[in-house]
Amino acid sequence: MNADILKERQNATFDVEKLTNILDGGPEFTTRRREIESMVLNDPDFMEEDPNFLSRSERYDQAVRKSAQMILKLREYGIADPEEIYCYKSTVHLGKPEPLDLHLGMFLPTLLNQANQEQMDRFFMPSWNLEIIGTYAQTEMGHGTHLRGLETTATYDPATQEFVLNSPTVSSIKWWPGGLGKTSNHAIVLAQLYTQGNCHGLHAFIVPIRDMNTHVPLPGIVVGDIGPKFGFDEIDNGYLKMENVRIPRENMLMKYAKVEPDGTYMKPPSTKLTYGTMVFIRSMIVGESARALSKACTIAIRYSAVRHQSEIRPGEPEPQILDFQTQQYKLFPLLATAYAFIFVGQYMKNTYSRISGDINQGDFSELPELHALSAGLKAFTTWTANAAIEVCRMSCGGHGYSRSSGLPDLYVNFTPTCTYEGENTVMMLQTARYLVKSYQQAKAGQQLSGIVSYLNEADHRRVQPQPVSARPTVVDINDLASLVEIYKLRAAILVGMAAKSIQQELQHRKNQADAWNNSAIDLVKASDAHCHYVVVKLFTDKLGEIGDTAVHSVVSSLALLYALHGITVNSGDFLQAGLLSVPQVLQISIRIKELLSQLRPNAVALVDSFDIHNKKLNSVLGRYDGNVYENMFEWARRSPLNATEVHESFHKYLKPLRSKL
Amino acid sequence: MNADILKERQNATFDVEKLTNILDGGPEFTTRRREIESMVLNDPDFMEEDPNFLSRSERYDQAVRKSAQMILKLREYGIADPEEIYCYKSTVHLGKPEPLDLHLGMFLPTLLNQANQEQMDRFFMPSWNLEIIGTYAQTEMGHGTHLRGLETTATYDPATQEFVLNSPTVSSIKWWPGGLGKTSNHAIVLAQLYTQGNCHGLHAFIVPIRDMNTHVPLPGIVVGDIGPKFGFDEIDNGYLKMENVRIPRENMLMKYAKVEPDGTYMKPPSTKLTYGTMVFIRSMIVGESARALSKACTIAIRYSAVRHQSEIRPGEPEPQILDFQTQQYKLFPLLATAYAFIFVGQYMKNTYSRISGDINQGDFSELPELHALSAGLKAFTTWTANAAIEVCRMSCGGHGYSRSSGLPDLYVNFTPTCTYEGENTVMMLQTARYLVKSYQQAKAGQQLSGIVSYLNEADHRRVQPQPVSARPTVVDINDLASLVEIYKLRAAILVGMAAKSIQQELQHRKNQADAWNNSAIDLVKASDAHCHYVVVKLFTDKLGEIGDTAVHSVVSSLALLYALHGITVNSGDFLQAGLLSVPQVLQISIRIKELLSQLRPNAVALVDSFDIHNKKLNSVLGRYDGNVYENMFEWARRSPLNATEVHESFHKYLKPLRSKL
Repeated sequence: MNADILKERQNATFDVEKLTNILDGGPEFTTRRREIESMVLNDPDFMEEDPNFLSRSERYDQAVRKSAQMILKLREYGIADPEEIYCYKSTVHLGKPEPLDLHLGMFLPTLLNQANQEQMDRFFMPSWNLEIIGTYAQTEMGHGTHLRGLETTATYDPATQEFVLNSPTVSSIKWWPGGLGKTSNHAIVLAQLYTQGNCHGLHAFIVPIRDMNTHVPLPGIVVGDIGPKFGFDEIDNGYLKMENVRIPRENMLMKYAKVEPDGTYMKPPSTKLTYGTMVFIRSMIVGESARALSKACTIAIRYSAVRHQSEIRPGEPEPQILDFQTQQYKLFPLLATAYAFIFVGQYMKNTYSRISGDINQGDFSELPELHALSAGLKAFTTWTANAAIEVCRMSCGGHGYSRSSGLPDLYVNFTPTCTYEGENTVMMLQTARYLVKSYQQAKAGQQLSGIVSYLNEADHRRVQPQPVSARPTVVDINDLASLVEIYKLRAAILVGMAAKSIQQELQHRKNQADAWNNSAIDLVKASDAHCHYVVVKLFTDKLGEIGDTAVHSVVSSLALLYALHGITVNSGDFLQAGLLSVPQVLQISIRIKELLSQLRPNAVALVDSFDIHNKKLNSVLGRYDGNVYENMFEWARRSPLNATEVHESFHKYLKPLRSKL
Repeated sequence: MNADILKERQNATFDVEKLTNILDGGPEFTTRRREIESMVLNDPDFMEEDPNFLSRSERYDQAVRKSAQMILKLREYGIADPEEIYCYKSTVHLGKPEPLDLHLGMFLPTLLNQANQEQMDRFFMPSWNLEIIGTYAQTEMGHGTHLRGLETTATYDPATQEFVLNSPTVSSIKWWPGGLGKTSNHAIVLAQLYTQGNCHGLHAFIVPIRDMNTHVPLPGIVVGDIGPKFGFDEIDNGYLKMENVRIPRENMLMKYAKVEPDGTYMKPPSTKLTYGTMVFIRSMIVGESARALSKACTIAIRYSAVRHQSEIRPGEPEPQILDFQTQQYKLFPLLATAYAFIFVGQYMKNTYSRISGDINQGDFSELPELHALSAGLKAFTTWTANAAIEVCRMSCGGHGYSRSSGLPDLYVNFTPTCTYEGENTVMMLQTARYLVKSYQQAKAGQQLSGIVSYLNEADHRRVQPQPVSARPTVVDINDLASLVEIYKLRAAILVGMAAKSIQQELQHRKNQADAWNNSAIDLVKASDAHCHYVVVKLFTDKLGEIGDTAVHSVVSSLALLYALHGITVNSGDFLQAGLLSVPQVLQISIRIKELLSQLRPNAVALVDSFDIHNKKLNSVLGRYDGNVYENMFEWARRSPLNATEVHESFHKYLKPLRSKL
């Protein structure tokens, strides 16, 4: 073990294991997680070549191999709990996406939710046994966000009792679905349903796309890989173009909506049925943000404890770079953010499972709030974590740029969360719609409940920016409850300002739609402030659940740093609204510096508490033992460019050049 | 041509060509640039395979081929002007780095600057004719920023009149130099010089590393590629480990410092001689930031004009996404930033050439200011452009994530500028050192000149945050001169606050070094504000040079947007310092929305003015003709994963899986 990192661990003021247990949700979960991780990591069938040294085709090949093994082993070991499956799977694929993701995560669940009994009989077991491998083909080249705009058509032909599927334009080609390019032999295709001359909007159809035996594309199907991306090298995101592809009537998923043999269309009883899945996935992405950021912080903070550079005091040995105030200021607020997001992720998961019971009973009353919250927090946490991973990478200097650091791969595989499952700006605007609606209800005298209830309290005089001098300041910058309060007031004020902007636009003879669009900047800002408030509040609430004094103390410092740092970054809002005075903002800057020093001795222990296995971290810089340089050299020597001492380009181009000059 | 983008061009209110000429520095430069570009782009010898579809070894191979061709052609066509060489080279390599970069940009110039006549005779012509291919090996695995910490040793042995070079530790292995891994047969190695028992610090040595004929590494040399990185796939960044490598005494670069045959060391006359090159490179990086950001804006804005999605007004066709206020708010401030950085880049280039004459005459008087400015602006512009490229990418939704967009490649090849040639935080602190020193001189009554002269004016009472009410506000938010003034005051105040923080730390019994480190957050903030002021000022100054009314009008809107947007992002500073009142900050938000609408019709024309050739842009989304979807489909079909209809992994893993389940 590297001497510096050993010393860091000896200096920690709290018991790492206790904090790990809190993050896992209890010691029994820590134990079980580690059991599952070692099942995978000690299993020779999951040994792999470093993907950094493979071509994309080889990376895909390796991922398919591991996915196939994974299916076998999950059944062999009888792992069936969704959380445990998730843990097993993310260990097998080291946090990366994998070619069967959509089969397991979308194709099978969609069958379960939307297939009728006859369809279950026909499709479920073959899919469960991977004879059928499916994907979920929704997005098209020309359409992602706006589902109503999708162009693929499924036209019913009563003569043969078949649907005829077509991609009528280039922009209608299905584009992006994971596993579509090479892996799947079936797809659930979302298409505009036409029957008896009418369009009935989007419906889902099971379309065979490749021969079950030869895997060759079927007639009328043009299918393939959409080409290399920023990351997701393991995934064959694909395209699908259909020309008069006929499928039996019974291949439309008909648990709810139906088309009768004669072509008569029957509406589904409710449109809210698919709503829950979307909310669930977005809630889960909050947890993804926490995990990705935890990894990035682990790498950057451990490396900063090992790396020595420059000087603070002339003549003394080079200090650990973690001793530079600027390095602490880059990393510790992000560390605090990682903790915040873990707790928010736990909250979202718990809330979802609480509400999903109600949903199954047909009670959708809490769904709109959870929908608004999950949309906003998905955007808030992914944007934050996305930028933060890059800060972590760059805080590692040049070596962060090497793939051996693990940070480039972490970034490129995380960054799509900002776009998929609801583009972030669109998400923020959806949350804003809920906030503005709630605000208007409160203003109209209705009593709001739930997380937006602060819009009741909002003294409407107050929802106006005003100079500091006009308002007495009673905020205690060291008291989290007090800080939660001003985050709340900031959110209330910004929601009010967005609503006011819409009002003003309407007065300028704009229609409702243009007024909304012309207020979009304010609306996004309001959503952002709302989410920020929720995160600070949930982080603060969590402290009440931590019994151990030493752990409580260090996590409280993190929570305070999170809240105060967020204020300095947005100090304009707090000053503008008169929620803080100028001297308070200055005090906060000083208090942040104190918190950085205070957290310094526990920094390594705080990332150790995430308990991310070396193999899952997959980073030379972030190794638990801190032996960075030897391992970096060893890694580099395995680079494919070093397979030969002399690269062929010397003989082909450089040596011949001499005689020509 | 796509109908939307055609309409955009028809709606522009100014003459694109006139603005292009301004960006190029005059119509004659536009003409010559286009001449050079077409020489390359029409030359079949520079045809290439899409690097996105190649392995790293193939990308390196292709780059070496093009570099060799480039050397031949530059001589054939007699292109010798540095700007024209730069233009030719960046067209050949489409803006990407190339394997001979260090040979041409560091090895040859270092010979010219630091070799004595005998060494010139021995090394220059072979290097000019690429028999010798060299690199510049400075950074080590354990040392980048802090040169004094480098560990490589060159020990003089008077018995044989040789230097003995060693890499005494793992961390001393030379690491990162471009072209070191595979391309070079020589390296200029920076090492600690030991002679007669004393260490005389870093000196440069010419070390042969590979056999001139076979290209095999020489005895005692361990050399290779450091492995895959985030980007820079074309470059063999390398490692070099030396074990008792002996080179003749005459291989130490001895134009200034010398070691006599008996081992007597003779100091160089001045230490400032290598200072200029560093300043030059950092100044050039400002221009790189502008170019990279211009490309990203071109791609994102053209695509946003072509892409239709969602709805603003219900029932109407899907609007161009450029009509969403949120999209404008993402992209137009970045477009304004690209323009700002182009003008700052021009200023830095001109200032450098003005001063470099003086430097050659031994007059270093203006160098410290330029050094401070280039360090800070290097950091300011690269950080800004770096984050901005990612905003542009994500503003293109899912398709931005495809390598066909060109944005991933742009990002990964640009982002190292934040780290190399001076890590950005270190750069900001260097600038801060100059600012604080200047501030203290001004406070001591000395009259400052040059760009920091505002620290003279700074009314020292004023360099204190104070509530708005205490100060009358006379700022006109529509007047750029007025905005330059408050940016200047903000910088002065933040420099003053940083100086005050150091003072306060010293009073708490801290020594100077710790006081500095404990004020580092404030120092970086001060540097950032200084750079921001300089950029706003230079952008505003530039407007005076634009004669054409229509062009002047649109560029003025950009300048105003740049200045106002910077204020809202940092509104806390302006409010805290009492430079703006709360109502003014609100007015600014409204004014920004107006500017977005005002710039909307010219957005496409403003990126057209950058005049970036399709092949240099290398983006399906950013194509000049706007025909995005057809070309995306065509591009995808060429993906290597589509070389076969059925990937072998189906037969190897997926089909066999069925029988096991």
